[in-house]
Formats: sequence, C-alpha cells, structure tokens
Amino acid sequence: MKQITSVQNPFIKSLVQLQEKSRARKQSGTFLIEGKREIELALKGGFSLEALLFWPEICPEAEARKLHTQPIEINREVYQKLAYRDTTEGILAVAQSRDLSLDALNLPDNPLILVAESPEKPGNIGALLRTADAAGLDAVIIADAKADLYNPNVVRSSVGCIFTNTVAVGSTLEVIAFLKEKNIAIYCATLQDATPYHTQDYTAPSALVVGTEATGLTQPWRDAATQNIIIPMQGEIDSMNVSVAAAVLIFEAKRQRGF
Amino acid sequence: MKQITSVQNPFIKSLVQLQEKSRARKQSGTFLIEGKREIELALKGGFSLEALLFWPEICPEAEARKLHTQPIEINREVYQKLAYRDTTEGILAVAQSRDLSLDALNLPDNPLILVAESPEKPGNIGALLRTADAAGLDAVIIADAKADLYNPNVVRSSVGCIFTNTVAVGSTLEVIAFLKEKNIAIYCATLQDATPYHTQDYTAPSALVVGTEATGLTQPWRDAATQNIIIPMQGEIDSMNVSVAAAVLIFEAKRQRGF
Repeated sequence: MKQITSVQNPFIKSLVQLQEKSRARKQSGTFLIEGKREIELALKGGFSLEALLFWPEICPEAEARKLHTQPIEINREVYQKLAYRDTTEGILAVAQSRDLSLDALNLPDNPLILVAESPEKPGNIGALLRTADAAGLDAVIIADAKADLYNPNVVRSSVGCIFTNTVAVGSTLEVIAFLKEKNIAIYCATLQDATPYHTQDYTAPSALVVGTEATGLTQPWRDAATQNIIIPMQGEIDSMNVSVAAAVLIFEAKRQRGF
Repeated sequence: MKQITSVQNPFIKSLVQLQEKSRARKQSGTFLIEGKREIELALKGGFSLEALLFWPEICPEAEARKLHTQPIEINREVYQKLAYRDTTEGILAVAQSRDLSLDALNLPDNPLILVAESPEKPGNIGALLRTADAAGLDAVIIADAKADLYNPNVVRSSVGCIFTNTVAVGSTLEVIAFLKEKNIAIYCATLQDATPYHTQDYTAPSALVVGTEATGLTQPWRDAATQNIIIPMQGEIDSMNVSVAAAVLIFEAKRQRGF
C-alpha cells in the first residue's frame, strides 16, 4: 500500500492548495472531503473519488478499503496538515467536482426549487442545503455565489448535504432567465410590495427565492417575481436567520403539496 | 463623571466575574449586556440597568447618556477586558436579572408557547429566541437548562431577543406539571409514535416542545404528550437544525391561528 509521511510531498502540497484555494479547485476539477459520513454520502450521490487518505491511528485500514480500493496511508503530521475540522475522523478523500451549470440541471415535472442569492457565509449555504435535503427539494440554485460550493466550509457545514441535493449555480440574470424559460413561478422573499407567504399556492412549479440577511434580494429578483412574499413578523427584531426563513417557506410549500 | 481606567478596580473585577461565572450572576442577580441595540432592547423590555460603561473612543458620551443618567467612562484597557464580542461598540451595561421561575410566568388567554429541553449550545437558545420573537410567541420555556440564560453567549446569539421574549425556566417535570395545570396541549417533536405535524390543530392553548439535535426529547416529555408530532423528512440526512425544525412548527401554528 502507498504511504505518504511528508508534508513536503508534492501530492500533499497540491491537496493543501485544494483546501485553501478556490482557483486550485477550479483548475483541477477536484476538491477535498473530510469525514467518513461525508465521503459515504458523496459516493451515494454519485461522486467519483480520485484518492482516499487515511491515518490508521484513527481510521482502521479496513474502513478505508470499504470506500476506495487503493487507499493511501498517511501519518499524523500529514493528516493534521490537511484536516480542516476539529473533530478528527482520520479520513479524507479527493473527489471530482460536478458541473454545476444551469445547463446541466435536470428537473423533474412540477419542481419545487430553492434559490439563494449571494449567501453571506458558507455556513448559511450549509444550513440551507441541510433544510433542502430534509424537505426533499428538487434543486437548490445559488445565484451570484460569493464562495465556490466545494470550499471546505460549505462541505462541512452542509454535513454532506452538498452531495445529497441537486445543486446549480449561475448569475442572478441567468437564473431568472432559466426559471422563466421553464415556466417556474418565482416567489421572492422580500419586504417590499409583498403578500403573506401562506396565501400563495405553491403546488405548481415554484422557486422560493431568498436573499441575504443584511440586504435582502436585489432589484432584478423583485422585478422578476411572480409574487413577492413575506413572513408576517410580530416581534421587536423583525429579522430571522435566512435558513430559518427559508425553512418556513419550504415547508409551507411541502405542506400544500401533501409532502 | 466617574472614570475607571484600571482593570484592577474592584468593580471591574466583579464585572469580569459576571461575564465568566454563572454563580456570580446568580449571587448578584445581575448580568452584563454588550452593545447599544441590545441595551436598548433590554430597556424596552423593562430591564433595569445598574450601571452603564462606555469607551468614548468608540461610543460618544451623548449616546451613553441617552441610555443612563450616570454613565461611567472607561478606557481601552478596561473595555477590552470586559468586551466579549469581536465587533466593538464601546458600550456595556450591568442589568438586573429577571425572576425566570414558572411561578412568575404570566400567560395571555389561548397561549402559544415554545418549550426547548436542554438545548446543547447557547447559540441554539439564541436562535430559538430569535424565531420566537419573530413569531410573537407568548412565552419560551427552557426545561432542564444547561446554561443560565443570562450567560453572554445566549445574550449575544439572541441579538437581544432574550429581552423581547417572555422567558421562563424549570425542570422538565416542573414544566410538564405547569402546562398540564394550565390545560395547555403538549405537542412533542419526536420520531417515535408521531403523527405529521401539519395534521394537528394548534388553535387552542398549545406548547410546541423540541429536544436536542443529538438525542431528542426525554421519555417524560413523550409520555406527557397530548400528541407526538414529526416533520416528514424526505432526504438522506434526516436531521434538521433544532431552530429550523422549531420554526417550521411555530409558523404552522401561527398560520393556523391566522397570524
């Protein structure tokens, strides 16, 4: 079995780049996955693994072999150089990225989609993906993404839901054009000229669109809306976490559709 | 105006204790609030301030005087000793704690209540309080709390919603007895013997009860339930963030009640 014990090894150096640099992920078309459960979900979601690395002190070789035919043994020094999380599981994989373009997005009949415009933090994208997985949404589209979706913070905060959801990215104008071409109704969560969310019918093809907590959706989305919708707020603060607000909208749509 | 410029000052030392020690908060019946908006919300919520400290380099004296008649000027060293957050607003207050016992909890007719059993992290309590504020719930009860509710992480993560909500604490058995005595229906979010949440009627006095993400609700809650309820999950992961799940339940109840 192949073993790597030096952080100066060129392959390990290339993996550090994958962890740290969006450009390295883009150029190579690969990214790192950390953790057994996440790797299992990626395999289940049809992702191909280019390599699997394990540190036998934490992860037994037999576990690694269940996930890849030719796992690479690494030592503590190499593992700690690559590992991103606090909880150590002793296992990492290099996976091939997906084509996340709208052209590659296949939708079923009568889809229910979540669109998030420019989520501020990778943690927010992860939380949205987690809710989308729970609801069994047909797709999650990130418009004008600020981070690439294979960055380690998104992968981590999604607890693997980046692999279980159907995901796409595009500019706001591209996503609007895509939805209109497919005759998918656009429901924009916004404060302006909005009607209470629960008065709308989401049983036809629908996209629920949420913006950032700080500034909400941009004007092109509000202009493109089939209907602007609002969650009636009755408190002092008038601001919910974006993933909480998205969940309220998503599950009302699911309720109307009979789950 | 009173000025304090030494971190060795006994009053400042006592405030460090308030920040760090639950016991110090309990013994003194006071706690620290950081940030202008949070202090304003505490005042709006009827909390009394025992002292207000400001660092004039960040917070002008005039701002401090709007919140307290006798603000205390501090310097950078003292401020940085006391400040808990990354974002510096240059203002802190010492506030009197509330009586959070169930005996002190006044409810309106036909209440809608959230109960959270042993939330794992202060951040989870903060997120629940934020959603409860948005929904205008009548009370939030924390059963078997692991942290005291005036700890700085709860205050911070609630973005002030610890002050805008009606809050109480008690043991699980005390809270169950309280709800039964008030004839408030108990809807426990759990996987076992549960019916889909949206099939239930929450228009009568209702408590929505959520447990931890890791282990859910304890047996006494499930035994005491008027009905165990479940959010139908259709994904691979079958686990939503507790504040997201609570929001879905809360807003379904609000929807049924016509907001």
